[in-house]
Order: sequence, then structure tokens, then C-alpha cells
Amino acid sequence: MLAYLSALFSVDTFLTVLEYVGALACAISGIRISSAKQFDLFGAYVVGLVTAIGGGTLRDIMLGVPMFWVSQPGYLINTFIALLVVWTFGRRIIKDNITWFIFDTIGLAMFSVIGVQKSLICGHSWWVAVVMGTITGAAGGVMRDVLVNTVPLIFRSELYATASACGGVAYILFLRLGCDPRLCAIIGGLTVVALRLAAIRFKIALPKMTGRAHLRLK
Amino acid sequence: MLAYLSALFSVDTFLTVLEYVGALACAISGIRISSAKQFDLFGAYVVGLVTAIGGGTLRDIMLGVPMFWVSQPGYLINTFIALLVVWTFGRRIIKDNITWFIFDTIGLAMFSVIGVQKSLICGHSWWVAVVMGTITGAAGGVMRDVLVNTVPLIFRSELYATASACGGVAYILFLRLGCDPRLCAIIGGLTVVALRLAAIRFKIALPKMTGRAHLRLK
Amino acid sequence: MLAYLSALFSVDTFLTVLEYVGALACAISGIRISSAKQFDLFGAYVVGLVTAIGGGTLRDIMLGVPMFWVSQPGYLINTFIALLVVWTFGRRIIKDNITWFIFDTIGLAMFSVIGVQKSLICGHSWWVAVVMGTITGAAGGVMRDVLVNTVPLIFRSELYATASACGGVAYILFLRLGCDPRLCAIIGGLTVVALRLAAIRFKIALPKMTGRAHLRLK
Repeated sequence: MLAYLSALFSVDTFLTVLEYVGALACAISGIRISSAKQFDLFGAYVVGLVTAIGGGTLRDIMLGVPMFWVSQPGYLINTFIALLVVWTFGRRIIKDNITWFIFDTIGLAMFSVIGVQKSLICGHSWWVAVVMGTITGAAGGVMRDVLVNTVPLIFRSELYATASACGGVAYILFLRLGCDPRLCAIIGGLTVVALRLAAIRFKIALPKMTGRAHLRLK
Repeated sequence: MLAYLSALFSVDTFLTVLEYVGALACAISGIRISSAKQFDLFGAYVVGLVTAIGGGTLRDIMLGVPMFWVSQPGYLINTFIALLVVWTFGRRIIKDNITWFIFDTIGLAMFSVIGVQKSLICGHSWWVAVVMGTITGAAGGVMRDVLVNTVPLIFRSELYATASACGGVAYILFLRLGCDPRLCAIIGGLTVVALRLAAIRFKIALPKMTGRAHLRLK
Repeated sequence: MLAYLSALFSVDTFLTVLEYVGALACAISGIRISSAKQFDLFGAYVVGLVTAIGGGTLRDIMLGVPMFWVSQPGYLINTFIALLVVWTFGRRIIKDNITWFIFDTIGLAMFSVIGVQKSLICGHSWWVAVVMGTITGAAGGVMRDVLVNTVPLIFRSELYATASACGGVAYILFLRLGCDPRLCAIIGGLTVVALRLAAIRFKIALPKMTGRAHLRLK
């Protein structure tokens, strides 16, 4: 366990950089939607912040540990940068959907892996870790959609949370096989990225419940 | 207090079975609504899971204790079964509203009583226990409705949360009268069931605020 | 730190009275909106309660401390009084927007200052305290709007959460300048009140994101 912890800390800087890139992408996604809803600057900032750190915050509350962002003001500043970016380069960012998609996928991969790792450090079993990884990756987007009063996107479209969960399972699997946690993190993260890319490229999606028309209510 | 705890544990198995039946009913309710909203399999699973364990999770977070489901994967499996059931028997389940109503009522009764008991064990006063029982019973349904972006049903219709609160009060009352906690649990649970049945049978509902038209805003 | 704590407790009674007035105003705001949405008595009570104590509850959960209301049933009773007030004096209250606005502003000021103080007592840094003050002041209103299924008002209109954040910053600033915490609390609270009054009087508002039309999505 100690070896596990020390291994974690040595990859910390690398993880942090990727995490901030991912958080920036999440914040931008929240701020863009807020713009479309005609929120003011404060509202856009809050929605951006919740999208970026909401998943991790919920995970930390559920794990009963201090929230990750109280010791590092970077996340609040990060969201402020996202606000400036959307305010300044709005049109270009909206058009550049590819960059946007890649950043967002990096964020999902990072958050998922971090959620799995933190849950394992807290002594939880593997399936709790996978759930927490998915919450870390996907709950921010759900909160964003609840705040702007729309049906959460991830419940209806592309492999998003599912990719997050699969990445968590991959992490656990390779950890069980005796791999170094750093390697597990990379494999877990790449699984998320690969699944999302494949889903977009080959238009893979989970079946909808109403693919079976008899389930329609009223 | 020790006697109280040991008495609780001896009824544990019975409680657990009823709790799973109730959780199954809650999960099915979430999955049915997700179907109507055309969620994909993952979205339906998440909404089902949140409906089933959201109330208890919120209670545990509010009480500051570990979440009840991290030590028993049964709840995740239970929701998976609910997904299979709706997927396979969709039409029949939707038609069979009576079975559905009974299961749901069992769930509400169980969750309410469990919430009251757990809060008392945590050393909270009786009225906090009643609030926590109501949260355990009713908050999952509120979260479900927030996630599918509708106005929470329980704020507008039949005695649901009110029945839960009354069951909690009955539990506390009989505990104060010196009854065995097992008996209190049964009385509390039956109070919930009786109130819901009576409300449906005699069309009893709480008055609406806008029964008084002058309260209408804009 | 000890001196700080003892100073706090000596202003406790004064704070408590103002806090209850503020909580009453919040509860009334939640109950009024519930009336417009045709909720039943229970639904209105829940929405009122969440509006009044939701922000402080979220703060306490995020800080990892026991929720403030479990030791004082006053908040539940307070919301019950709000329900009676709206039920009885509905029309007059709705017309009397000035009183209503003043009460609500007192509540925002009180909650913000209390949130800042409690976070500092928990040992958090100044910017976490400001965030927590804003959450205490504004999150209840966001929860209210999520529960009644509308876009949160504070993301789109007048200086509400921004005033709360500025009050928190003022509190911190004067604390750093060596002022007595009681004085800081008064200055912080008055900052909130002054900003809200000025915003209404001079129609000051934060710019909307879509003031820049190119940000519009779709």
C-alpha cells in the first residue's frame, strides 16, 4: 500500500497538468451552455466551476474526505481563465469542435482515473472505485445540465459515462494483474480515450430504452 | 442503547429482504421514467440507481457516516436486475400498476423506518430522525425527477412524503412508550402503508397552496 | 484563535435573531414559488425549508462538520411559520415587495457572513471562506429553483451571489487589517446590503454572456 502511495505521488505533476487541461475543457463546456442560456458573468462562472470540480467534489463528499480543491486555488483560477477564453475567443472555440472534443476527452480520462485511485487509497473495494471514478468523470456534466435546466446530455447520447466506467475497470484489472499503478493509470486513461474516439468514429452508442417502443409511457 | 442496537441486528435479515424489494421498486420507477424520456441503457441505470439509493446516500452524507451501499454491492446488482426486468417485461410491468404500487409502498415504509433508526443510532434527536426518515424514503424520488428534468411528483400529488413522516412519528411515539424497537419498526412501517392505501382508496391529498387562488404568482 | 472564537460567541444572540429573520424570508420565497407551481402543503414546506437551510446544509456537508440545524429545531418551526404566513397573508405579502426585499437582503447578508466565519473556524483559507459564504447565501435559492424546475434566477439577474461574495471579501479584508470579528461581520453584512440596494437603485447588473451575440449556441 505504501509502495502504491509513493508510486502515485511520483506521477503527480504529470497528472496535475493533464487534470487542469481537462478541468479547463469542462469549465468551458459549462460556460458555453451558460452563454446560450443568457446567464450573466457570475452565473456562467458558477456553472463552469461546477462542471469542472462538481464531480470531484461529490466524490470527496461521498468518500468523506476533504474536498480536493480547498488546498489549491488553481481550480478557481482555471475556471476564471475559461471564462476569459470563452469571452474573448467565443466564436472560434465554438467552431473548433475537434480541439474541444479532445480536451474534454482528456478531462474525462483524467478525472475517471483520479477518482478510481482516490477511492482505492480510501480503502474501498474495486467496484466502489469504479463507481467513484465514473462520478468524478461524469457527475460534473450532470450537475451542469441540472443547473441550466435541461435533461442531462450523458443520459441520452454517446459513450461518455460508459467510457469512464470501462476505463475504471481497465485500471482495476491491470492493478490486479500486478501492474505498476502508473501503468494502470495510463491504460485506464487510454481506454477512456479509445472508447470515446471509437464511439464517435463508428457512431457506436448504447441502445436506448425506447428502442423498445412498448416501454413508452403515456 | 446497547440493547437497542442488538435488537436491531436481530431483525436485520428480515429488514434486508424487504429493503431490497423496496429498492427494486424504486429502481424500476426510475428506469420506467428514463424509458419514457428515451435515455440510453446507462442513463436508465443511473436514474434507477439514484432513485433506489439516492435517499439513503443523502441521509448518510448528512449524518456524516459511510454510505450504506459501499459495503454491499447488492444495490448495484439490484438495479441491474430492475433494468433487465423493465427491458424484458416492460409492457406487463407498466400495466400492472397494483403490484407496482404495493412494492413502491413497501420500499417507502422500509426506507423511512431505516432512516429513523439510523439517525437515532447516530445520537440525533427524534425530530431529526423523522426528517432523516422522510429524506431516506422520499429524496430518491425527488432526485429522479430532477435528473429527468420534471417537477418532483411528490410535491404535487398523493400522500407520499407525508406518509413517510407520519410513519417516522409513529415509530418515535411507540419507542417513547417503551416498545421494543422491532415492534416500533413494524408499527412505523404499517403506518406508512396504511396511510398510502387510505390516501389512494379515499382520494385523500394535502390541500394545494393554490387552492387559494390569490397566491398565484404571475 | 481562541479570542476570535470567544468574540464570536458573544455576538451570537444578535446573529441568531437576524439569521432567523433571513431564514424566514428565504422560506417565504420558496413557499411563494411553490404556490405558483401548485405544490401541496408538504411540497411547499419542503421547498421553503430547502431554500432556508439548503445553503448552510451544503456548506456544513462540504466542510465536513455536523449540520447546523440538527441541534436547533427552530429552523423547522421557522419554515412552518413561513408556511402559515403565506397561507394567511398571501396576497398582502406578494404585494409588499419592499419588506420582502429587505428581509431577503438581511438573510443574504447574515448567511454570507456566517458562512465565512464558520469556514475560518474550520481552518480554511480566506478564499475558501469566501466561496463558502457565497454558497451559504446563494445555494439555497439555486436548490429552490432546481426543485421547482426553473433556471436558477441568480444566474441571470441582479447582483445576488456577487453581493454575497463581495461581503465575504470585505469581511476577510477587515479581519486582515486587524479589526474585531464583530466589526468585520457588520462591515461584511453591510457590504452585501449596500451592494444589493445600489444594484436595485441604479439598475446595476453583471454583463450577460450573450451581450456578445457570437457566443450564442445553435
